[in-house]
Amino acid sequence: MFDKLIKNLNGYLSFTEEEISFFLSLCEYKIVKKYDLALKVGQICDFVAYVNKGLLRYYYVAGDKEHTARIFLEDSWTSEYASFLCKKPSSVSIEALEETELIILRYDSVQRGYDKAKVFERFGRLMAEALFIDLENRNSDFLTKTPEERYLLLLQQEPEMFNRVPLKYIASMIGIEPESLSRIRKRTAGR
Amino acid sequence: MFDKLIKNLNGYLSFTEEEISFFLSLCEYKIVKKYDLALKVGQICDFVAYVNKGLLRYYYVAGDKEHTARIFLEDSWTSEYASFLCKKPSSVSIEALEETELIILRYDSVQRGYDKAKVFERFGRLMAEALFIDLENRNSDFLTKTPEERYLLLLQQEPEMFNRVPLKYIASMIGIEPESLSRIRKRTAGR
Repeated sequence: MFDKLIKNLNGYLSFTEEEISFFLSLCEYKIVKKYDLALKVGQICDFVAYVNKGLLRYYYVAGDKEHTARIFLEDSWTSEYASFLCKKPSSVSIEALEETELIILRYDSVQRGYDKAKVFERFGRLMAEALFIDLENRNSDFLTKTPEERYLLLLQQEPEMFNRVPLKYIASMIGIEPESLSRIRKRTAGR
Repeated sequence: MFDKLIKNLNGYLSFTEEEISFFLSLCEYKIVKKYDLALKVGQICDFVAYVNKGLLRYYYVAGDKEHTARIFLEDSWTSEYASFLCKKPSSVSIEALEETELIILRYDSVQRGYDKAKVFERFGRLMAEALFIDLENRNSDFLTKTPEERYLLLLQQEPEMFNRVPLKYIASMIGIEPESLSRIRKRTAGR
């Protein structure tokens, strides 16, 4: 059950078997049913989670419109990290678009990891750095790339997403209307 | 010379005297003259720096227009952190608006710190987390607050900035034209 997670962890850092065992002892396993929420806007996000299987969508509501902010496939880490770090209400809801298996670390377990050993502090630092870089890149993509460029980048980086996620959510994440995404897809289909 | 920095460090975590000595042994001291650049767009940012005295402005050029992204006063930490972490060209220039004293840690020194002791890993994690939270908050302020609300927040959090920074830079950072900022300032002056 933990094979993919262990491989993912060792992609960040070399952990000893003892460190991996300790890490796994902190974890909880959770299944979120299709269309159920892993987190509801306004709740404090008290976890970081490894997506072992399935598909999650982050969305927020502004005015009377729902906006999809992120989509996470298997083998990724997921959290509303600002809510987690500051213990403040989440600004998004996290919905499972398929039945989703999560391996969860609660806030207190994460702190126990940090207290236990330097390697977990380093892992936490690398995660926070990766999240910072990811957020900067997304900001920069929105400022400097056209919707078509953002679409082509996503298609290249996450081709599987297009087989599993309704296009209206992908369009929203790119920042355009579904009709515009359809036009872009037709125009670029042969490339 | 290091008094303010030591106080700043101890605000994050309890360091022993030995740890502080080691930390300081990694530091370099640098003066940047008024209107000189601490970092030029396209360079790789190989440092994080503590602003011991002075004032820095981050800006980028889009089209033929200069945009002020951030302003840092004394007692803050500064870096183009995505450039620093990924060793990629900086997307901004960093200009001193007054003669500025920086206490600098180069990339390799930072890594030596991380290797040395757990407490420095924790410090690095807390810094990365703080940068992530800061970036999220700024994104959220731009999405959910009016220019007037952004101005009033800045005035409350950084009143000194308004005595030392030309209003055109503050307007740019808030995302409005200087004339609009003047109007907002007149309208809200009595509050």
